[in-house]
Amino acid sequence: MRGAVLYGPRDVRFEERDAPRITKSTDAIIKISDTCVCGSDLWPYRGINPVTQPTPMGHEYCGIVEEVGSAVTSIKPGQFVIGSFFASDNTCPNCQIGYQSSCQHAEFVGGAQAPMLRVPLADGTLVVTRDVPSDDLIPSLLALSDVMGTGWFAADATNVKPGSTVAVVGDGAVGLLGVLSAKQMGAERIIAMSRHESRQKLAREFGATDIVTERGDEGVAHIKDLTDGIGADSVLECVGTQQSMTQAIHSTRRGGYLGYVGVPHGVELNGQELFYAHVHLHGGPAPVRRFLPKLIDLVWNGKINPGKVFDLALPLDQVAEGYRAMDERRAIKTLLRP
Amino acid sequence: MRGAVLYGPRDVRFEERDAPRITKSTDAIIKISDTCVCGSDLWPYRGINPVTQPTPMGHEYCGIVEEVGSAVTSIKPGQFVIGSFFASDNTCPNCQIGYQSSCQHAEFVGGAQAPMLRVPLADGTLVVTRDVPSDDLIPSLLALSDVMGTGWFAADATNVKPGSTVAVVGDGAVGLLGVLSAKQMGAERIIAMSRHESRQKLAREFGATDIVTERGDEGVAHIKDLTDGIGADSVLECVGTQQSMTQAIHSTRRGGYLGYVGVPHGVELNGQELFYAHVHLHGGPAPVRRFLPKLIDLVWNGKINPGKVFDLALPLDQVAEGYRAMDERRAIKTLLRP
Repeated sequence: MRGAVLYGPRDVRFEERDAPRITKSTDAIIKISDTCVCGSDLWPYRGINPVTQPTPMGHEYCGIVEEVGSAVTSIKPGQFVIGSFFASDNTCPNCQIGYQSSCQHAEFVGGAQAPMLRVPLADGTLVVTRDVPSDDLIPSLLALSDVMGTGWFAADATNVKPGSTVAVVGDGAVGLLGVLSAKQMGAERIIAMSRHESRQKLAREFGATDIVTERGDEGVAHIKDLTDGIGADSVLECVGTQQSMTQAIHSTRRGGYLGYVGVPHGVELNGQELFYAHVHLHGGPAPVRRFLPKLIDLVWNGKINPGKVFDLALPLDQVAEGYRAMDERRAIKTLLRP
Repeated sequence: MRGAVLYGPRDVRFEERDAPRITKSTDAIIKISDTCVCGSDLWPYRGINPVTQPTPMGHEYCGIVEEVGSAVTSIKPGQFVIGSFFASDNTCPNCQIGYQSSCQHAEFVGGAQAPMLRVPLADGTLVVTRDVPSDDLIPSLLALSDVMGTGWFAADATNVKPGSTVAVVGDGAVGLLGVLSAKQMGAERIIAMSRHESRQKLAREFGATDIVTERGDEGVAHIKDLTDGIGADSVLECVGTQQSMTQAIHSTRRGGYLGYVGVPHGVELNGQELFYAHVHLHGGPAPVRRFLPKLIDLVWNGKINPGKVFDLALPLDQVAEGYRAMDERRAIKTLLRP
C-alpha cells in the first residue's frame, strides 16, 4: 500500500509502505475511511521537532475493522470504529480514572495517513458506532479521534459550566472545537482570539460571542476590557508556545481555570508568577477515549458537527499539498481520502 | 508600644514603635491576644528575601477589638476576632468566588508581632467568634489566621475526599496542618514526608498513616512503592523550593491533584514535563477568609486542635529567640504572648 512518510522539514512523501499486519494478539487492523493532518504534525514538518528517520505520519483515524488478533473480544471485523491517537487498555488505574492517554500500557498510534492501520490494544482503544455511518457523518466522526476530543478536554479541564465566560487562545482546529465544546457545556460568553477572517467566521458559527484580534499584552488587555477587568473564568490554551501560555495565564481570572492542550514547545512557567495568578492549571495529552462515547452520540444525533473544521479535502495521494496548505495557513485542517 | 522589627538577616529587634491608629474609616485596631512567627517570616530573616528597610514583622493575629473606624458596621469594640494576613473587602468579584487573598483591594497585614495591630477593611477581613474564647482555645484560633487556613487550602485545592490517598511534602507547621486537613476531609491514607522525629510524631497525631523520610527521587520512589506504583491522588506541596515542587509533581498520580501553598522561591516549571505529568495544579496565597467561619466552628467544637503546632511559647519580648528556635528547627512554630 502507499502512505505518507516524513523525511525531513517540508519533505512529506506518498510512497510504498508495508501493509500493517497483526503483530500482537490484542491488535486490530482497520481499513481507513478518512484520515487527516493534525496541527501537531506541523511541528516535525516545520523542523521544530527533529525528524531522525523516515516516519510514517498520521494519528487520526476511523474506519472499518478488517481483522482482529486472537485476544480481541469486543471488536469484530465489519464494525465501524474510532480510536484515539493513544492506544490504551482502558483497564489500568490511570484509564479507570479517565486518563487513558496516560495508560500504563499506552502506545502512540502512528501511520494513519494510509489506507490501512494497525491499532494496538483494540478492545481498550476502539469505540464502535451503532451502525456503519453514512458518508456525510464521517468527517465529524473522524474529528473525534483527536481535535474534537482535545478541544473538549480543554473545556472539561477548565470547569466550563452554564453561564461561564470562556476565552480561547489559538484559532487552529483544536481552538475552534474548544469554542464548540464550551458552547455545548453552556458557556454564556465565548471569546475567540483570532486574526483570520475564515477562522473567526467558523468560531462564530461554533458559538463564539466575541472575537479578539490582538495578541500578547494587547490581547490580554482586550479580554480584561470585555470582562470588567477580571479576566475569563476559563481559558483554553490551544497552541503550546510561551507567548500563548503567558497570554492565557494573564487572561484567566483569579481563582479561574486554565486548560492547556497544545504540546508545550519551549514553555517555562515561573513558579512565583503562577502562584500569585491564583489559577487552576490542568492539561496534557487529551484522554480522548474518555469522551468518545459521548461525542459519538452528539455527532450521531446531529448536536455537533465538528467536521466543519475540514475546509480542504484531498485524495490521500495529495497529502503533501495537504501539509503545505496547513503550513501556509491556507487551510484550517486537511481531510485525506484514501 | 514595643514590637518586633527586622533590620536584616538574623537581626530581629524588639523595640519601641508607634502604636497603630485608625488611618482609614474602614480600619479596626485590635489588642493582640496571641501572635506567632510564620515559616514565611524566615525567608527575610534568612536573607533569602532582601530586607530593604527596618520592617515591623508578623501577620498572624487574633484578639479583642479596641476601636473601629467610622465606616465599620459589623465589627464592634470588645469582640474577639480573627483575620487573615491579607485584608480583603469580601465583596469584590474575586472575594465573591472565594479568592479573598486576591481581593481587588487586598492589603497585606503587617506588624502583628506587637501588642496592638491595625487591620484594614475590618468588615471584610475580620470574623467574630460567638464569645470571647477561653485561654486554652486561643492558640488554635490563632493558627487559623494563616497556617491552618493555608494547610486547609492545600487540601481543598487538591480535591481531597473520603478515601483519598494524600502525600504531604514539607513538615513545617503548614505541612503538618495539611495532614490534619486531609484527615478532616476523609483521606484514607496520608503520607507525611519528614525526617524529624518530633514532627513525625505530630504528623501521626494529626492523622498521618505513613512516614517517608527520604527526599528527592528516593522520596518519590518510596511514595510510588506505597501506592502500587501509581502515586498519590493528592499532593500538598508546603515548602516552595524547586526540589519540593519537583518531588511533588513526581509523587502525584496521572490525573491527580497538586496543591502548592509555600511561596515559590526560584521555582521554574517545564511546560512539557508538566503536560505529560497530567496533574491538576493549583495554589497561591491561601484565601484564609473563605475558610475562617468553618474552621472557627471546628476549633470551637473541639474537632480540631491546630494549636498543637506551637511547641514553643515565649513572651513577646523574647521574639528574637522565637525566630532563632524556628530557624534552627528547634521549634516547629513559636507562639508569642504580648
